[in-house]
Amino acid sequence: MRYVEHIKINRKLSINELITLMGKIGVMGCGRLSRAVDILEEMIKDKDCKVFFGQAGAMIPGGMRNIISGFIKDDFVDVFVTTGATLTHDLIEALGYRYEIGRYDVDDVKLYKKGKDRMWDSYMPNKAYESLEDFFEKYWDEFSSCKKINALVWKIGSKLKDKNSVLFNCYKKKIPVFCPAIADSGIGLMIWGRKARGKKIFIDAFDDMNDIIDIAWTSKKSGVFYIGGGVPKNFIQQAMQVSPKKSGLGVQITTDKAEFGGSSGASLKEGISWGKMSHKGKFVDVYLDATIALPLIYGALKEKGL
Amino acid sequence: MRYVEHIKINRKLSINELITLMGKIGVMGCGRLSRAVDILEEMIKDKDCKVFFGQAGAMIPGGMRNIISGFIKDDFVDVFVTTGATLTHDLIEALGYRYEIGRYDVDDVKLYKKGKDRMWDSYMPNKAYESLEDFFEKYWDEFSSCKKINALVWKIGSKLKDKNSVLFNCYKKKIPVFCPAIADSGIGLMIWGRKARGKKIFIDAFDDMNDIIDIAWTSKKSGVFYIGGGVPKNFIQQAMQVSPKKSGLGVQITTDKAEFGGSSGASLKEGISWGKMSHKGKFVDVYLDATIALPLIYGALKEKGL
Amino acid sequence: MRYVEHIKINRKLSINELITLMGKIGVMGCGRLSRAVDILEEMIKDKDCKVFFGQAGAMIPGGMRNIISGFIKDDFVDVFVTTGATLTHDLIEALGYRYEIGRYDVDDVKLYKKGKDRMWDSYMPNKAYESLEDFFEKYWDEFSSCKKINALVWKIGSKLKDKNSVLFNCYKKKIPVFCPAIADSGIGLMIWGRKARGKKIFIDAFDDMNDIIDIAWTSKKSGVFYIGGGVPKNFIQQAMQVSPKKSGLGVQITTDKAEFGGSSGASLKEGISWGKMSHKGKFVDVYLDATIALPLIYGALKEKGL
Amino acid sequence: MRYVEHIKINRKLSINELITLMGKIGVMGCGRLSRAVDILEEMIKDKDCKVFFGQAGAMIPGGMRNIISGFIKDDFVDVFVTTGATLTHDLIEALGYRYEIGRYDVDDVKLYKKGKDRMWDSYMPNKAYESLEDFFEKYWDEFSSCKKINALVWKIGSKLKDKNSVLFNCYKKKIPVFCPAIADSGIGLMIWGRKARGKKIFIDAFDDMNDIIDIAWTSKKSGVFYIGGGVPKNFIQQAMQVSPKKSGLGVQITTDKAEFGGSSGASLKEGISWGKMSHKGKFVDVYLDATIALPLIYGALKEKGL
Repeated sequence: MRYVEHIKINRKLSINELITLMGKIGVMGCGRLSRAVDILEEMIKDKDCKVFFGQAGAMIPGGMRNIISGFIKDDFVDVFVTTGATLTHDLIEALGYRYEIGRYDVDDVKLYKKGKDRMWDSYMPNKAYESLEDFFEKYWDEFSSCKKINALVWKIGSKLKDKNSVLFNCYKKKIPVFCPAIADSGIGLMIWGRKARGKKIFIDAFDDMNDIIDIAWTSKKSGVFYIGGGVPKNFIQQAMQVSPKKSGLGVQITTDKAEFGGSSGASLKEGISWGKMSHKGKFVDVYLDATIALPLIYGALKEKGL
Repeated sequence: MRYVEHIKINRKLSINELITLMGKIGVMGCGRLSRAVDILEEMIKDKDCKVFFGQAGAMIPGGMRNIISGFIKDDFVDVFVTTGATLTHDLIEALGYRYEIGRYDVDDVKLYKKGKDRMWDSYMPNKAYESLEDFFEKYWDEFSSCKKINALVWKIGSKLKDKNSVLFNCYKKKIPVFCPAIADSGIGLMIWGRKARGKKIFIDAFDDMNDIIDIAWTSKKSGVFYIGGGVPKNFIQQAMQVSPKKSGLGVQITTDKAEFGGSSGASLKEGISWGKMSHKGKFVDVYLDATIALPLIYGALKEKGL
Repeated sequence: MRYVEHIKINRKLSINELITLMGKIGVMGCGRLSRAVDILEEMIKDKDCKVFFGQAGAMIPGGMRNIISGFIKDDFVDVFVTTGATLTHDLIEALGYRYEIGRYDVDDVKLYKKGKDRMWDSYMPNKAYESLEDFFEKYWDEFSSCKKINALVWKIGSKLKDKNSVLFNCYKKKIPVFCPAIADSGIGLMIWGRKARGKKIFIDAFDDMNDIIDIAWTSKKSGVFYIGGGVPKNFIQQAMQVSPKKSGLGVQITTDKAEFGGSSGASLKEGISWGKMSHKGKFVDVYLDATIALPLIYGALKEKGL
Repeated sequence: MRYVEHIKINRKLSINELITLMGKIGVMGCGRLSRAVDILEEMIKDKDCKVFFGQAGAMIPGGMRNIISGFIKDDFVDVFVTTGATLTHDLIEALGYRYEIGRYDVDDVKLYKKGKDRMWDSYMPNKAYESLEDFFEKYWDEFSSCKKINALVWKIGSKLKDKNSVLFNCYKKKIPVFCPAIADSGIGLMIWGRKARGKKIFIDAFDDMNDIIDIAWTSKKSGVFYIGGGVPKNFIQQAMQVSPKKSGLGVQITTDKAEFGGSSGASLKEGISWGKMSHKGKFVDVYLDATIALPLIYGALKEKGL
């Protein structure tokens, strides 16, 4: 039997000191957050374990760009699966734009007239689409030579000079990036626009599956780390399902709920029934805003010397 | 000024009689649900208005298959955007399997051993994958001749005889189906498996964009109806964004929340800032379990004679 | 094994016909809602079963007044536990005021200046406090003779002529009303105001406990029905805990979540560990907006002839 | 215009260094959390500002006892309003019991047989009720001489020697404690049990209102800090409503939602319409698990030298 040990703060604490105290509580949200750090530490430290990072949600307009890049730069993850929106949001900053601190209780008609695209209380400058056009125009020959989504993503990353960019760092570190629904994004729109004007590019909708499943199949062990749900989570879970080695370590940060039956809110444990997760794995679901979870987790991992 | 009129039930009420009473309350969840029916009625009745239906979440394991098919069969919608999971779940029933009524608080290891894939409290028989294999084997020549995702989806539908199937009805009624992340599904796995064994199929990841944007571009008016968020919602919103005619009517059924900044939980009103929604549109966000919302909405629409 | 039977709607359905179809689905939200009606039917029909109804949340500004009164008038419940806010909201309508259909995205300063007290998108006229003052002034002698909270509540109800009033109907049907936190309400303010001006009233903070626990103790069987959580739910659960007969039937409608550890979001099943709920009871937690759940449930029960 | 500055962590960070970086993001959850610390700092530092702390939820079984006691010991708050459950949970630890780290997915019948009362994944030993009985027996003469709830609470605190106890510290620091629904708790049960056996105690249900409203009325300024909603939040808001000085600073940590209309989920801004909050106040609603929010906020405040 272990007992709840109440957190006592009587001096300046570092992030990891706090996370460690939370682990002594062991229950509710703080216990789960601490357990998430432990499980992530285990999967990162284990050289035989491939770490699959699935990320959805407006993390870059929410200030998490350096943290996500940090996971890449520090070799914390081996595979990155994300949404077209995240890649577009990252590219927009790499092209020199920034997200503005705004409000959610505003007149959206006024924002429209000012060219500010709202994501809750963060605004993206609509003018960024013009720079996206120029960027795709400039590198179109190289982009249109790509045959797979992940090849295109790396190619885009290779053209960037922004050292904080997720795209740039994935390219530089040769971390495979999967984005099955890339058509559903600003990047997709750039490709649509060119195809509509008669330009050619042939990217297969299914070829990336082979690459991610190969990694899952050939890994000695695997761990999963999910921020939000959606396609990124499910695409990794699916790779686990068809691989002989199930995921034995898992961390999920979510604000969705299991009781409505969707994949985004499903507990990691549910994946056992499908053959996605290992029967004796260590999993934790953390019900927490990812813009708060990510800095705490990354800060704690760095402080542990990873 | 309008006042809240409390619902009074002193006789047997039909669904639409109840929804109408909810409209007299006008506030909170019941007011929103009633307003959703009114807005849907308006978009369906207006012959100039194209209705885009975006659906995510485990609706078919949740018993909503006939309702979704009903929306298709009754010409309530002009475009259907969904997840690969929904298409796979539908196909599995068309191949003769059924979802089992289960529990969520179970031993997932035992379920795994029994071949039951759990989605909250609904179980899918894992054996269904074998029939999927046979089905894809049988029709591979035709499937592999498809060049677009929406063509493949219709081709799959054309092979089914199940009159309740969403796939069958979309094919029969020639309702375009978009599924940008189809690789992320059981159907995707069937294609991956064949490609991995050297079979050929070339489906472009971006070509469907042209089709949905064309429909949005050439519509005199448009309306949107979202169940859940994810790629289906965003893919429609994106088509609206690049079209000159913004969506003037919108209904969203969601259990997600706006305050975490993601697209799934974003209010329809937020879309105004992006140029996705019309400045003077009628929109309603309904915070409700879709397995309860869908039968009420569909039942009310049918009763209104639509 | 029971299978999910998809809802098919091809004719005008009554509320209970729909709820019955939802029961054939058996899973997710619609399955739970249908099960809730079955469990409520069982507890209401069983003459040996005392039904404890705990209700929190702004149900009267949300249009649920007649439904709640209906539960009382129709002898569906034996004990009513609620918040001071609900009693005050009911009294305000009994005094001739109404709730206005408003908006949630408004300038609250403007509302303040117009004397409109906002509850999400429903407004209460601030002037109602003046009528509350008059009402308490008029009947103060009688009110101040009460020794228990439940006696005061009945006394208030006895002065009303509004046949739709919850207070009036509880008095008329002699349904005991418990409201442990009555001080935390507009009614509480009326009493505070008079005490502050030197008037006398002595109402014991603990005496009502005896009455509710007596009812729980002497019941052959008991059932619980919770709308929202808070004090009303916990006060009933506590009465069950100290009684030899635990609650064997339970329905909870909630939008709260279990994972944060509070009583409001706790599953009914958790009550077994405390000795509040019976080991073999039938319980269901329904995750649903109560302004949608209540009319559906009440309508179905009425249609079943209860 | 201020822009989102992405958090960069390249060295060991203290809690407040992280919170300060979150403030530079300025949007979404992390921006709100940082703003909460700033607003709390302002209300604590301002000697003219009375700080009203309303706390609901199972914070003590969740490991937050020392943090809550810390807010009291450090003179961060002037008034404490809580639930009977929190006071009982605190008393149980003061009597020598501890909360056990458990699981939520367990057989509650087994827990019942082992005498473990579950709150999500934290267990309370049911035997604690025996010590509560002894404690109330021992001090009954003094307890039964109390005429107000807040006097009883201080009296209980005066009998404790546990320096980490919330009850002990409120007594020692002479921080008024309000608990309108104290009957709804284990402490309430102890009093009920004695009254049922013929012992006498007369505690008025309304007298405490005078005390809290007096503090609100005579404060030059006031600030509010809410953890969870329920009666504690509403009881403070009500005191603000009837006082001439509205609350100009406010922080709310909640996992509830505004759209269902209840007081617990209502935004602080809504309080402006009621005359509870100041027209030009600084308020922030933080959507966050309180077991994560509290240590971060308290740690940051301490590090700032408060």
